[in-house]
Amino acid sequence: MPGSTFGTLLKITTWGESHGKGVGVVIDGCPPKIPLTEDMIQKMMDRRKPGSSIASTSRREADKAVIMSGVFDGMTTGTPIMIMLFNTDADSSSYSPFSELFRPGHGDISYQAKYGIRDWRGGGRASARETAARVAAGAVAKAILDKENISVKAYTIELGGIEAKKRDVDLISKNPFCCPDADAAQDMENRVIEVRKQGDSVGGIVEIIAKGVPAGLGDPVFDKLDADLAKALMSIGAVKGVEIGAGFAAARMTGSQNNDPILPQGFATNNSGGILAGISNGDDIVARVAVKPIPSISIEQKTIDKQGNPQTLSVKGRHDVSAIPRINVVCEAMVCLVLADHLLRQKAIL
Amino acid sequence: MPGSTFGTLLKITTWGESHGKGVGVVIDGCPPKIPLTEDMIQKMMDRRKPGSSIASTSRREADKAVIMSGVFDGMTTGTPIMIMLFNTDADSSSYSPFSELFRPGHGDISYQAKYGIRDWRGGGRASARETAARVAAGAVAKAILDKENISVKAYTIELGGIEAKKRDVDLISKNPFCCPDADAAQDMENRVIEVRKQGDSVGGIVEIIAKGVPAGLGDPVFDKLDADLAKALMSIGAVKGVEIGAGFAAARMTGSQNNDPILPQGFATNNSGGILAGISNGDDIVARVAVKPIPSISIEQKTIDKQGNPQTLSVKGRHDVSAIPRINVVCEAMVCLVLADHLLRQKAIL
Amino acid sequence: MPGSTFGTLLKITTWGESHGKGVGVVIDGCPPKIPLTEDMIQKMMDRRKPGSSIASTSRREADKAVIMSGVFDGMTTGTPIMIMLFNTDADSSSYSPFSELFRPGHGDISYQAKYGIRDWRGGGRASARETAARVAAGAVAKAILDKENISVKAYTIELGGIEAKKRDVDLISKNPFCCPDADAAQDMENRVIEVRKQGDSVGGIVEIIAKGVPAGLGDPVFDKLDADLAKALMSIGAVKGVEIGAGFAAARMTGSQNNDPILPQGFATNNSGGILAGISNGDDIVARVAVKPIPSISIEQKTIDKQGNPQTLSVKGRHDVSAIPRINVVCEAMVCLVLADHLLRQKAIL
Amino acid sequence: MPGSTFGTLLKITTWGESHGKGVGVVIDGCPPKIPLTEDMIQKMMDRRKPGSSIASTSRREADKAVIMSGVFDGMTTGTPIMIMLFNTDADSSSYSPFSELFRPGHGDISYQAKYGIRDWRGGGRASARETAARVAAGAVAKAILDKENISVKAYTIELGGIEAKKRDVDLISKNPFCCPDADAAQDMENRVIEVRKQGDSVGGIVEIIAKGVPAGLGDPVFDKLDADLAKALMSIGAVKGVEIGAGFAAARMTGSQNNDPILPQGFATNNSGGILAGISNGDDIVARVAVKPIPSISIEQKTIDKQGNPQTLSVKGRHDVSAIPRINVVCEAMVCLVLADHLLRQKAIL
Repeated sequence: MPGSTFGTLLKITTWGESHGKGVGVVIDGCPPKIPLTEDMIQKMMDRRKPGSSIASTSRREADKAVIMSGVFDGMTTGTPIMIMLFNTDADSSSYSPFSELFRPGHGDISYQAKYGIRDWRGGGRASARETAARVAAGAVAKAILDKENISVKAYTIELGGIEAKKRDVDLISKNPFCCPDADAAQDMENRVIEVRKQGDSVGGIVEIIAKGVPAGLGDPVFDKLDADLAKALMSIGAVKGVEIGAGFAAARMTGSQNNDPILPQGFATNNSGGILAGISNGDDIVARVAVKPIPSISIEQKTIDKQGNPQTLSVKGRHDVSAIPRINVVCEAMVCLVLADHLLRQKAIL
Repeated sequence: MPGSTFGTLLKITTWGESHGKGVGVVIDGCPPKIPLTEDMIQKMMDRRKPGSSIASTSRREADKAVIMSGVFDGMTTGTPIMIMLFNTDADSSSYSPFSELFRPGHGDISYQAKYGIRDWRGGGRASARETAARVAAGAVAKAILDKENISVKAYTIELGGIEAKKRDVDLISKNPFCCPDADAAQDMENRVIEVRKQGDSVGGIVEIIAKGVPAGLGDPVFDKLDADLAKALMSIGAVKGVEIGAGFAAARMTGSQNNDPILPQGFATNNSGGILAGISNGDDIVARVAVKPIPSISIEQKTIDKQGNPQTLSVKGRHDVSAIPRINVVCEAMVCLVLADHLLRQKAIL
Repeated sequence: MPGSTFGTLLKITTWGESHGKGVGVVIDGCPPKIPLTEDMIQKMMDRRKPGSSIASTSRREADKAVIMSGVFDGMTTGTPIMIMLFNTDADSSSYSPFSELFRPGHGDISYQAKYGIRDWRGGGRASARETAARVAAGAVAKAILDKENISVKAYTIELGGIEAKKRDVDLISKNPFCCPDADAAQDMENRVIEVRKQGDSVGGIVEIIAKGVPAGLGDPVFDKLDADLAKALMSIGAVKGVEIGAGFAAARMTGSQNNDPILPQGFATNNSGGILAGISNGDDIVARVAVKPIPSISIEQKTIDKQGNPQTLSVKGRHDVSAIPRINVVCEAMVCLVLADHLLRQKAIL
Repeated sequence: MPGSTFGTLLKITTWGESHGKGVGVVIDGCPPKIPLTEDMIQKMMDRRKPGSSIASTSRREADKAVIMSGVFDGMTTGTPIMIMLFNTDADSSSYSPFSELFRPGHGDISYQAKYGIRDWRGGGRASARETAARVAAGAVAKAILDKENISVKAYTIELGGIEAKKRDVDLISKNPFCCPDADAAQDMENRVIEVRKQGDSVGGIVEIIAKGVPAGLGDPVFDKLDADLAKALMSIGAVKGVEIGAGFAAARMTGSQNNDPILPQGFATNNSGGILAGISNGDDIVARVAVKPIPSISIEQKTIDKQGNPQTLSVKGRHDVSAIPRINVVCEAMVCLVLADHLLRQKAIL
């Protein structure tokens, strides 16, 4: 029944609800003597902040990361690192109707079925606010990967039906949608403005790429690198699909098209997404996730109340029009956590 | 580093290589007093057998499942169930060139990088033969689910670019591709014959549907039902993508299109694939996986040998043209294992 | 490498150092709808407070337990419960000599060998202060056990060589050593006064008894109830031995003496300590732990510094003369955690 | 509910019953390229064989270890190693009365309570035969430790009340009781002969010593080295107590007696048993276990049947008079498994 722990050697445990005292994470298994400061974590937290794009909510959590343990003189000590994020801007008033109503597309109805009780304020544990703890943990994982010159980047390749045609990663930090294609970014903005007016929301696709990953990571036959990435990414609230390398497109290829020829200087193509038989092959790791549209929309929807009576509801409150781009850094964090965990696992072999 | 154990309360551990003495699985945590016979397991094993379609290899493993422990008087005892599958038709001769060459699209190069040694005969541990143990374990999971009237079915909805337009599940057992659309099945056959002639292979898409799953299964925030399904399915060798419900299509919908309205009699649509916030909502669980084309093709390919020298190779031997339909029952088994595990996990709450 | 998580279905993760910002615990897997208040936790925390006996340190931590998550309207919600204990009375000044010296009997030298870095202030992670988080978690476990009418009690049966001859558990709360024998308690007090004068410390034996445990708990062959109890208790800093039922005395018995006859009304004796073949048999669970003397003594001792040079040291500061009786509630907490975990595990069978 | 898996990075899963088709173990996580042959395993298995002392049963299992997977060209490959031990001399006839009666001191009554069904033949899963799989796994762990020059030895220091006064480990293989004191060994033999005549059985104490263990193994605060050793050893059927270093004797010492002075050349004494704060300190690891007398005795005992009616029973069949010395190699195997696991865990730090 417990499900808030993830990882084998780099093991994280998150806790907290949207409108409780805060959220946080214990990171256990981080190697000692890795430089770690609150600033390093904050830098990653800030990328998850709302308000960075017009697709985002107006709720303003400072999301100030506080290191409570496991760091001494600016270095990790090998003991558990607890990172705390106090809730400061929680306003539950707009949620009170939902104590009795199930919001379509949200976990209200399934949480009620599972636990028979739920903290309905702001979605409680099922709130996207939970992902703040993942990002804090991801910052620690990133510090581990940095030491090995492994880098991970997430960016938007599709939003509201608008596809990025290019992969100019230098553009990611230069437009509000973290899109590697300036033209597409402009179209995305127009699309978001239009949808916001309609009281609706949009989904999209995020791509994550990891460079510098050594060959050999991943533990067949169940803890394969792609299997653990799939779990890590699918565990993010809004994600409905995960693919590696060519992904679903591979289903339409022939073997001669899909196989990546092996040359002395490396692979000629990367349909595998850097993973063969569940083990990294030294090429870039490439994953893509399908992000569903935010379920909180002001358009009226049919639902039922706790007694099963038909009702309608319209979700007002402060909501994003799309989980993208705020979800990008969450995807990046989850990939960092999986890679750092498998990096440590592989050390036990050598 | 160990990666051959899967599950929390229904925990399986597989072992074995393609051309060693056999493969097998230990299933630990199966509740006691569940009727279990070798025939029940064999019935499921037989669906994985080659030769059931023209897409399959001519290797003929009897794949006779032998229960070695954990069953007494035809009932499970609650102790570990070991199921053994001896290898009987292994022929390593055609593999000997690959002791020194890395086959493109296979795990040869990544296994070598990881372990520095590999059993190259028939792909060793990375062989699809490993999945026989998953199917045997899946048969035990199915026996658990049967008691709760939960059924799971996998079928082919796309092969070599041919899509099924219908979902007539009664047809699944009536055509060699386990396709719920008779016309598509015919087209698939033509496509496979054509590709086989070219010495090439094809991929496709398998859909898995579970009916009768009670609301409440899945343990946020990491062991969500969809997250565990994603890991389970992505851990199958040929799978490169997993989606739940509307999946990647959800990325192109608006919230008002994607949200499933909740009516007193149930959900009006099932874009969620039966899972909200990582917890089953009582609707059908629907998952889809992208299966890449079999990498073993007789068309000549570029590769390198263990010393890094450029080489070409053409894979002869006995190979399937597509992992579909043999992989279907493997997908079904993995879904059964996840559902049975989470069913047991949920009992600890009640 | 991570080692701060314990339990399978009731899973706890602790964090924190003696002189950092605080210590705490995440309890994941607690069933929903169990009444839980900070007062319930505080009541158990207070039993661990120093100052309750003359054997204890003068450090005065308020040890105010704050529930940060997982509780709503006074009830658990099934989501992770984080309990926080801020450090308020940490005084590192007396520890500064030990940044360079290894205190005999403490983990200074082994922590340095393992991690190459250590937070030397107050013993850091190796401080007994870590056990405060265990007690907070134990209070949650106790709330689960209460629902099933299972009670757990720990008391002192030996201290500084003085043995309790009786088991009058009503006396436990009536003398400062939690001893079920009033005469022995008086002798223990005299012994402690004498040892304190000598600048030395003493060890002792704690017995833990659990009543009302249903038959059937424990998962052979490795997660046996006695095996998990042994791990739980041996993981407490000062514990050097654990025995169940007759324990080491059983090694000197014959089978006819040690076997507990089974009568229609129950077992005639309880040499088994309520556990047969690793599974509870319905009788009282009885465990005993050997507690070593506190290593911090003012008597001068030989040691080395970080450079390996011979040194002498005398530990001043505020220290207990014995871990008993403060350790008793820690033992009780660990037994509660094991029993509650196995109680939940057993539900998955039924 | 599953409990037959042990270890984190060196993970073993055992299966099998006394009178089923066999017992076995999957060892997952063994590093690649370690020389491993069936002879190496057999050598350790043979030390568990009955008939090596007059304290043992006359059942003669060949206990021929067969490596089924994970080894290629005499070397481990990093993939799961399955070792199989077929049952060949099982004779269930003498057990048939016990299908309805609960044998005192055995798990019959607790297994029935837990599972509601049990394989009563030869004790089923609760039979000491289960430990054969542990020894096979221990042989693999020993091969890992050999590479690092770590040695582990178990020997008898007490049997039927007779204590060894010496620790001459060269004598262990030279008397039937594996006793490091020749005089004591002679007295043990006399004691066993006497007890056998009485139809009774005896217990004793086994000491296990590990030399060459590097400082730094063990993961506080729960997966401490002593905590994991305690679980490993207590999980062996007949064990009722575990102590480390001075153990229960430490409870009677003062701090100045118990603390091991640290000298430039190492520790002056070893009351800690080589473990401080749960982490190895570089000194010898020393553990001791209390072994209860074999419960199967021919002296008549009181019990009940499955319906709860009072009965008497006398256990005939082929039984050991003491679990010692056959249990010694089981203790040794469990210690090897814990040390090898923590050795791998510690590599992830470096």
